[in-house]
Amino acid sequence: MASLENVRSHRAFGGEQAVYRHRSVSTGTAMEFAVFLPPQVAQGPRPVLFYLSGLTCTWANVTEKGGFQRSAAELGLIVVCPDTSPRGADLPGENDAYDFGTGAGFYLDATVTPWSRHYQMATYIEEELPGLIEAHFPADVSRIGLFGHSMGGHGALTIALRNPDRYSSVSAFAPVVAPSQVPWGQKAFTGYFGHDPEAWRRHDACALVGHSRWRRPILMDQGSADEFLDIQLRPWLFSEACAAAGVPLTVRMQPGYDHTYYFISTFMDDHLRHHAAAFGAR
Amino acid sequence: MASLENVRSHRAFGGEQAVYRHRSVSTGTAMEFAVFLPPQVAQGPRPVLFYLSGLTCTWANVTEKGGFQRSAAELGLIVVCPDTSPRGADLPGENDAYDFGTGAGFYLDATVTPWSRHYQMATYIEEELPGLIEAHFPADVSRIGLFGHSMGGHGALTIALRNPDRYSSVSAFAPVVAPSQVPWGQKAFTGYFGHDPEAWRRHDACALVGHSRWRRPILMDQGSADEFLDIQLRPWLFSEACAAAGVPLTVRMQPGYDHTYYFISTFMDDHLRHHAAAFGAR
Repeated sequence: MASLENVRSHRAFGGEQAVYRHRSVSTGTAMEFAVFLPPQVAQGPRPVLFYLSGLTCTWANVTEKGGFQRSAAELGLIVVCPDTSPRGADLPGENDAYDFGTGAGFYLDATVTPWSRHYQMATYIEEELPGLIEAHFPADVSRIGLFGHSMGGHGALTIALRNPDRYSSVSAFAPVVAPSQVPWGQKAFTGYFGHDPEAWRRHDACALVGHSRWRRPILMDQGSADEFLDIQLRPWLFSEACAAAGVPLTVRMQPGYDHTYYFISTFMDDHLRHHAAAFGAR
Repeated sequence: MASLENVRSHRAFGGEQAVYRHRSVSTGTAMEFAVFLPPQVAQGPRPVLFYLSGLTCTWANVTEKGGFQRSAAELGLIVVCPDTSPRGADLPGENDAYDFGTGAGFYLDATVTPWSRHYQMATYIEEELPGLIEAHFPADVSRIGLFGHSMGGHGALTIALRNPDRYSSVSAFAPVVAPSQVPWGQKAFTGYFGHDPEAWRRHDACALVGHSRWRRPILMDQGSADEFLDIQLRPWLFSEACAAAGVPLTVRMQPGYDHTYYFISTFMDDHLRHHAAAFGAR
């Protein structure tokens, strides 16, 4: 069993908010993640919700500012918050921009050198991390869900759409839904995949949804005052793609909300309840 | 009317979380504070709750990590979060320690030079800031309360005890209750007051409570795993002083909780309800 180092633990809302460090076989680096264990784990395994963060974030942003612990403790959900990229891989240019390299892994497996050596965040999130959670915590991995913000919303949607049998639920805050069509995604995909239309399609929620067997309800919140709305996010593209594919999507345009954690925390409870409903009352 | 510069505004929980900067007459420096306006301000003035933060903090810690906005929006409370000291006064030694000078104003009016020139946080919190809030926001200043954490719990308790007619309610998370008897307080009082037993007494909750007309219920939460419990906090000293003075104090020792915002956010709702009950249902 791979070993986990406990970095810190805090009691919170009757449960435990901890942070762990481990050596990742996917990325070849040390990785950290946060995990909230609700009080109900004392009675047995609980469902697991993975939260994928946006550009520049670590586990800390949502863990400190997202306010999920209160409802997770009430609903009995384990919440796992991974990092957004490998750290310290020491690749040339890795720290030159906020939207590529460190803090900007885009939840994909890079195929272009030198990135392909370490930037294997899809495998990390889809395979390695759930295995670690199952091995080390009282987790019911027959019930797992994904959600995230911005780049992490992209990660949650694309991973769920590619693995419709593995995930029970998905939701997103202000996600990047059409990376192939917007500057953040085009830069990342060009850097990590080069010119590889098939790879681009497999990591683009709008392109994937028509080819996925995913048919469960998707919840999405989007602030109307989000500075990235028109250029990077364009939620209407996903609305159109889901309508064409017959996927039940609820997009809630939230008047006056922006792209910050004040927006996310406001609607956090609704997202946890969306996932808890999918997990059922077992 | 003194002018306020809006530094930022975010929509949150149906209300507005804003940050303002202004020129303080008390401190002679620029000061920033955060203010949450609940949705109910559209219908008229609302009570105001001042949150005083602990050592090293600014308005940002509790505003981003405290999770008060949800319940404040529900209960219709304005929440004001000031800074913990003047910033940029440029005094010799001001930034040498985390527990004196910048970030460590201790909510008192210093009498020893050079600190007395700028470190006038008692006047700032008791006089200047409430005046600014009344002038610029839909605030019902006949109903104001104070709460805070650690050094800020000390600030909340001492300011309320010195002004029993002005404040409707007070509560604290892991407060410094006997600064005259613990290292943080002794260092601060020596630096800001020198040897002045009367000033020390007027800023020590345990010493004040027997001489105050305050008789309303005080709520206090304290984590049992708080690393500062035995050396700096010693809540039993305040329990004894309140019992002797006939002040109704509830101290809740919370098993396993530490000194972080995970502790504070867990019990934040209870504190807001404590204050809302004192403000009444008007």
